[in-house]
Amino acid sequence: MASVVETYLHRIQSACTPMDAGTLADYIPQLAAVDPDRFGVSVVVHDGHVYSVGDSTIEFTIQSISKALTYALALRERGFDDVDAQIGVEPSGEAFNEISVDHRTRRPRNPMINAGAITATALLLQRPHDDEGTRDDSGTAVDEAFALILEFYSGCAGRHLTMDDEVYRSEMATGSRNRAIAYMLESFGVFPSDPEAAVDLYVRQCSVTVTSDDLAAIGSTLANGGVNPRTGRRMLDTAVTRRVLSVMTTCGMYDGAGDWVTTVGLPAKSGVGGGILAVLPGQLGIGVYSPRLDEHGNSVRGVEACRHLSDDLGLHMFNVARESRVTIRSTYDGHELDLGAGRSEVERAYLRAHRHRVRVLELQGDLTFSGAESVVRRVESLRPDADVILIDLTRVGVIDDVSRRFIVGLRATLLADDTEWVIVDPDGVVDAGARQTARSAAADAPVSSMAEAIERAEDILLKRAADRTA
Amino acid sequence: MASVVETYLHRIQSACTPMDAGTLADYIPQLAAVDPDRFGVSVVVHDGHVYSVGDSTIEFTIQSISKALTYALALRERGFDDVDAQIGVEPSGEAFNEISVDHRTRRPRNPMINAGAITATALLLQRPHDDEGTRDDSGTAVDEAFALILEFYSGCAGRHLTMDDEVYRSEMATGSRNRAIAYMLESFGVFPSDPEAAVDLYVRQCSVTVTSDDLAAIGSTLANGGVNPRTGRRMLDTAVTRRVLSVMTTCGMYDGAGDWVTTVGLPAKSGVGGGILAVLPGQLGIGVYSPRLDEHGNSVRGVEACRHLSDDLGLHMFNVARESRVTIRSTYDGHELDLGAGRSEVERAYLRAHRHRVRVLELQGDLTFSGAESVVRRVESLRPDADVILIDLTRVGVIDDVSRRFIVGLRATLLADDTEWVIVDPDGVVDAGARQTARSAAADAPVSSMAEAIERAEDILLKRAADRTA
Amino acid sequence: MASVVETYLHRIQSACTPMDAGTLADYIPQLAAVDPDRFGVSVVVHDGHVYSVGDSTIEFTIQSISKALTYALALRERGFDDVDAQIGVEPSGEAFNEISVDHRTRRPRNPMINAGAITATALLLQRPHDDEGTRDDSGTAVDEAFALILEFYSGCAGRHLTMDDEVYRSEMATGSRNRAIAYMLESFGVFPSDPEAAVDLYVRQCSVTVTSDDLAAIGSTLANGGVNPRTGRRMLDTAVTRRVLSVMTTCGMYDGAGDWVTTVGLPAKSGVGGGILAVLPGQLGIGVYSPRLDEHGNSVRGVEACRHLSDDLGLHMFNVARESRVTIRSTYDGHELDLGAGRSEVERAYLRAHRHRVRVLELQGDLTFSGAESVVRRVESLRPDADVILIDLTRVGVIDDVSRRFIVGLRATLLADDTEWVIVDPDGVVDAGARQTARSAAADAPVSSMAEAIERAEDILLKRAADRTA
Amino acid sequence: MASVVETYLHRIQSACTPMDAGTLADYIPQLAAVDPDRFGVSVVVHDGHVYSVGDSTIEFTIQSISKALTYALALRERGFDDVDAQIGVEPSGEAFNEISVDHRTRRPRNPMINAGAITATALLLQRPHDDEGTRDDSGTAVDEAFALILEFYSGCAGRHLTMDDEVYRSEMATGSRNRAIAYMLESFGVFPSDPEAAVDLYVRQCSVTVTSDDLAAIGSTLANGGVNPRTGRRMLDTAVTRRVLSVMTTCGMYDGAGDWVTTVGLPAKSGVGGGILAVLPGQLGIGVYSPRLDEHGNSVRGVEACRHLSDDLGLHMFNVARESRVTIRSTYDGHELDLGAGRSEVERAYLRAHRHRVRVLELQGDLTFSGAESVVRRVESLRPDADVILIDLTRVGVIDDVSRRFIVGLRATLLADDTEWVIVDPDGVVDAGARQTARSAAADAPVSSMAEAIERAEDILLKRAADRTA
Repeated sequence: MASVVETYLHRIQSACTPMDAGTLADYIPQLAAVDPDRFGVSVVVHDGHVYSVGDSTIEFTIQSISKALTYALALRERGFDDVDAQIGVEPSGEAFNEISVDHRTRRPRNPMINAGAITATALLLQRPHDDEGTRDDSGTAVDEAFALILEFYSGCAGRHLTMDDEVYRSEMATGSRNRAIAYMLESFGVFPSDPEAAVDLYVRQCSVTVTSDDLAAIGSTLANGGVNPRTGRRMLDTAVTRRVLSVMTTCGMYDGAGDWVTTVGLPAKSGVGGGILAVLPGQLGIGVYSPRLDEHGNSVRGVEACRHLSDDLGLHMFNVARESRVTIRSTYDGHELDLGAGRSEVERAYLRAHRHRVRVLELQGDLTFSGAESVVRRVESLRPDADVILIDLTRVGVIDDVSRRFIVGLRATLLADDTEWVIVDPDGVVDAGARQTARSAAADAPVSSMAEAIERAEDILLKRAADRTA
Repeated sequence: MASVVETYLHRIQSACTPMDAGTLADYIPQLAAVDPDRFGVSVVVHDGHVYSVGDSTIEFTIQSISKALTYALALRERGFDDVDAQIGVEPSGEAFNEISVDHRTRRPRNPMINAGAITATALLLQRPHDDEGTRDDSGTAVDEAFALILEFYSGCAGRHLTMDDEVYRSEMATGSRNRAIAYMLESFGVFPSDPEAAVDLYVRQCSVTVTSDDLAAIGSTLANGGVNPRTGRRMLDTAVTRRVLSVMTTCGMYDGAGDWVTTVGLPAKSGVGGGILAVLPGQLGIGVYSPRLDEHGNSVRGVEACRHLSDDLGLHMFNVARESRVTIRSTYDGHELDLGAGRSEVERAYLRAHRHRVRVLELQGDLTFSGAESVVRRVESLRPDADVILIDLTRVGVIDDVSRRFIVGLRATLLADDTEWVIVDPDGVVDAGARQTARSAAADAPVSSMAEAIERAEDILLKRAADRTA
Repeated sequence: MASVVETYLHRIQSACTPMDAGTLADYIPQLAAVDPDRFGVSVVVHDGHVYSVGDSTIEFTIQSISKALTYALALRERGFDDVDAQIGVEPSGEAFNEISVDHRTRRPRNPMINAGAITATALLLQRPHDDEGTRDDSGTAVDEAFALILEFYSGCAGRHLTMDDEVYRSEMATGSRNRAIAYMLESFGVFPSDPEAAVDLYVRQCSVTVTSDDLAAIGSTLANGGVNPRTGRRMLDTAVTRRVLSVMTTCGMYDGAGDWVTTVGLPAKSGVGGGILAVLPGQLGIGVYSPRLDEHGNSVRGVEACRHLSDDLGLHMFNVARESRVTIRSTYDGHELDLGAGRSEVERAYLRAHRHRVRVLELQGDLTFSGAESVVRRVESLRPDADVILIDLTRVGVIDDVSRRFIVGLRATLLADDTEWVIVDPDGVVDAGARQTARSAAADAPVSSMAEAIERAEDILLKRAADRTA
Repeated sequence: MASVVETYLHRIQSACTPMDAGTLADYIPQLAAVDPDRFGVSVVVHDGHVYSVGDSTIEFTIQSISKALTYALALRERGFDDVDAQIGVEPSGEAFNEISVDHRTRRPRNPMINAGAITATALLLQRPHDDEGTRDDSGTAVDEAFALILEFYSGCAGRHLTMDDEVYRSEMATGSRNRAIAYMLESFGVFPSDPEAAVDLYVRQCSVTVTSDDLAAIGSTLANGGVNPRTGRRMLDTAVTRRVLSVMTTCGMYDGAGDWVTTVGLPAKSGVGGGILAVLPGQLGIGVYSPRLDEHGNSVRGVEACRHLSDDLGLHMFNVARESRVTIRSTYDGHELDLGAGRSEVERAYLRAHRHRVRVLELQGDLTFSGAESVVRRVESLRPDADVILIDLTRVGVIDDVSRRFIVGLRATLLADDTEWVIVDPDGVVDAGARQTARSAAADAPVSSMAEAIERAEDILLKRAADRTA
């Protein structure tokens, strides 16, 4: 029996346009010869699970989708400064194969048009620290750079990808537009490699074959901050991933960026091979394959499938599940705790009398700025009325850097005010990701259970009583 | 002592450019006369709490930021079809005061340029169901429409806003550019109102005065799906909110959309009065005021403050807190449950012998497509080996529509396979938001605690034993 | 019996497209209501004679053809500096009703687009020497300026023209495009008058009614250096006329300037009323009327008639009648002259012996640089071998300034070389146009006949003999 | 002693800007290395005479001026249809090295931008009648085509020109812009030859060296309808010449066509080598050389020299020497003729009594449409009152085709009305250029002198008297 999710994907598949809308790319015979009725839809979710319907294992050439990947690779290999010096990030409002450079800087406007994509391949051909700007334009350099590209694409897809040699040869034979673009860029005086070599490399990368499953896997790698969720291998760091997703958002779907963001709301990139790659950051990757194209060169049914996925599955990036994330699950004070269990009668009595001086904050979900801000604010408001505050992180998933810094800052604030805290952190989320992994054994180190936390709170109250006596 | 968050805002404030960069708008004397060194930064978070530093209560004219708001209002009042027929959603790559219409449709390219904004005001002047297209261009119509605008802006800001009459009069006296735009649109044949009336209304809305606190409050209303988090009043529905945020993403910061999405990654809108409004969807609104402008007409320090907020507080919309959201906290089977407590000896023995046929899924966080998909998949995989599956939603915050439908679908799948489920839902999240609020008393209705769930699971196992006997 | 020329015009008329090609302008009812099959062709030649076939006396509105005339009038009234500061002379490559200003100067690109034409009317509304830039925008100012325009157009046409009041009122009611243009220009900060007044004046001038005969008469005035050949009245000076013809050449026929210059090769201007005005500088004016328009707004048959006229009558401005104009009809020496008639025997003998020292240049045609250069060069080459040179201007029409200066320069050269000259100028062309009209009685003053010239040449030879003797 | 004309040229030369304005082209070392202060001005007049001042024999590379010449050659070799199918004639308003194709047709907008010029070279490489469109792209083809180009340029200049090999090699090495353009054109699908071959040929033609004397000679060939006035060799037919002059008028001086036509009014073309070629159709060619360029790539002093030449020598093409060319020198009747000389007493008496029935038209100048029209009209008006009309063409230079046809038409009109004519044509201008050169011996054949004409008129009158008697 089909899975619930697959049932949904099937429903979306059937909802798409009758299969005869659009036309095949035909500038080379290989593209014109594919079966026009193929239609595959794949989704790879956070943990690498693959859902797919239809022709999800049919191979086709990646074409322009490669632009997003090689841009990412260039950022990884050459760094932001070098790449940004050569390629802009602004939507061009023009067709993908226009030269479209910024009038002032002469940089291609963005990496999703051919001019920007060819510059990205040229950056991979240029030796980074070669101050002489010496070009190694031999076939060897192209071979080496392409090996790197193929290795990178394969790593993102989680399987070994190869190039369609026939397509490569056809595109080289008809590639006057790309040669024109490369020579034009060179004529501006700052092109990083030999134009012919850059075009060769670009055509090779466009000829890499993928399936819709592969595209979804690549998408999930981008969704996942650069780590392939199926292999666990980090392909890109998060900053590069974020940049690529940003540029896909504004420039990925050619001249209809505004419409795409409005109606689909997913960073995406399409190719004339019939593929579309889309990403829901933090969550999943989508791959669609259907070779009939609309007048912009986007897959007709691919675009429609993406619209349906976004609408029916609520994937628009501005889809706000609830209006404000309730990170603080509950707050209560010591009356709800069984204080003094196992203590002496006197101690128990004291603790019960002062149990209102113990406050508990139970948190849930992921802690980013917004949630951390809530916590900090609540703690600050509880401070005057509490001797010790228990912060229960049992239900918290992850804590980002700013939240971690906020909690550290909070510690200082509390101490200044003579309030103590106890953090319950069974999963160790406070330290996760921290450079120093050695868990502190200090008195204020997180504890693993509420029971432990209560005991420490009791100790604190009793110690304060003793101190006051002394 | 300053709050931790405010300390951060202060730090960001000081990190911004020396105050003498940029120049005041000077096309009318009122703008040229403001104190150029004012600088206010405000953040309003999910629950309406306001953080602010600097000159956050100084009033200034809202200017172009009004474009985002009136666009939202027009969508609310006239619906998507009417508005989309008149105003596009594509970035124009041109200055805000260019006419910039789509060559084919003659629609202004987007609502964030003057042409689109004036069309939005014209739509508010046109009576919606007036088939004759009769215009009511009298001063009365403008007065009424402006009252509606002011009421709407005030509702978003959470306080009564007013117009600066002097600025209004100055801008009317020098408004030839806006008149030119309105007449040009009329010359295309489809302008919804009298050009002079639309310009009058547009200039009035630009002359509304706000503070950075107001902008942040308005931003939080957009972040919050259209509900003002301070007043709880719904100003817009979620579809309109999502649209406005989408358009702010691609068109809000004029000709630098790509750069803004790349570096700041927050939907935003600026005005020549010196204000910037930014939104982190689902989380918070930001308002900044600093009147010195860069060559694009954006507040110099406003832009910088937004960059710092995004970087330092991790607010970029593609900032992925953790790579994949772990929605399934744990799964375990009946061995970890105390089955048979309070049952007869025989029943207890039977239950213990079959406790591996009980499976528990403990979930956490919000359930949207991605998480629901995980759950469904896990349940489907457990099915063959279980008679009853307990799904513990105690730690789940909200469930969106698609997830709710998934869970319903899952129920059908399980029943088909002769597997039962028990849902533990103490907070009633499964039904929240459902149109029908009457909770079902049916056998498969959610229960409120694990104890209750265990009891129901025991009943199921025992009933199955009896059935097999019979 | 029809004149030969009229026969030709009839032939051209019949050669034009079947009458149903093209469509009437229909933005106002008055234009849509004309008889679409009207077709008139008129030619006014150098002396004002009118040839016309078809509907050459049907009145229609002048529309955009007025742009050329009001530009001329503005140049006359305000001077080149003032007008050039406000209106460029470059083709725009855009439709006539685009705003089309130069990006740098913000001037309308040329006076043949609406923006430039409305600026020209505004210049007529601005008081020239009003340093305060005070505008007199009252109806009175518009009335006065329009009276001037009407008087000017009438003067060029040679009859009293009037305005079609209905067309004027319709165009004012639908004139949002022109208002848009005027307000946009004002928004650039340098518009010379109130935008509404300028539009009013512009619409009035467009509503003036003319016939194809009128257009041809106006054209002949431009062909004739600014003097109406029928009335002899000077309407413009030659510098203004040359400028207007230059601008008509590059900008008159909208976006097809290159094609028009290539195929027709006549400065021209068309209007949506169905008229076309064309000019063969120095020779004739053409007026055509046929109200069906092509997609550029040019009269379909009007364009065709112009092509035929140019081709069939050889009117292309680069039509070179003969490759090099033979200005020197003949040169000969004194052997061909009957020297010494009526002289003493001795003198006659002397003169005959020295007759080779007399050289004659017989010139013909008009003397401009090219011809004058030939003459000068020939004279210079004859100089060493001649004591006296006779220059016979009997067959010369006019002499332009540079030629006159050349001849004066030549005189100096000859004297320096001890060569004398005698100029035969029965028609007084050497002095024609000279400021000082008093004819010199000096020894080297031109003579009226060859007989007189010969006598003077004889005197010179004899005097030289005497001098040498002495 | 300097000639009057040279004195003028010297004056113009000194009037030009101090020599240090502008900068040398520096994209290749050879151009940057020339002596920046060189300044030569040359004028070649109708009969091939050369005036020159300054560095008029210094060689420099022709560069873009070659565009006009190769366009002419392509028109000659391939015909208008083939060339017009590939290259437009509209000004582009863009820099010369923009690709600038028509959006619809994908043709380069005109032959004066690189895209159009490279297409022209490609047309010379394509074999005209090769239906297969087979390209012969071997070096041989380029060599052959360049030989043709060099032969043509040399023929226009009147001396053997050669190529600067160093410049050629440098430009090939840095020619990425031209390669970009050629490949881009090929990518549109209709480029006539191999892109690399076309670029090679284009760079060769740009590297041909000329002097300002050569440019003036080439210009005089264009002025002279395609015949080199120095050698008498026809290089182009008049239709091609007219086309090239038309395109030079609207597209020759890059983005300032309107300004150039307005202020200089001469078809022209400039090159970054520092040369400018200008033409006064029908009269003369101008060549200027001064290597410092303005920001458009035009020679600074070259432009200024052209302005001075145009202004000071009255060369603007719309410079109308006199407002209306008086072609009819005089008309008179038989009273002014000595009729009957040598006739019998009776005949003489008869002729004297009827001398008012003889009318004489004395014409002068060249007969083109305008003049012929005057003549025809006058003859038609005289007809009723005359038995015989004498048309004296003694002072007429040339008669163009339409005028000849008019005269033939006139003959028919006269005969129909029983009026005879006698044409006095000593120079045979009526038949000049006529295909059939055999002079008719018919009764109405032209006569060579007035005496002969009078005799024939007498015969006619007497014959009519006899006829009436009979």
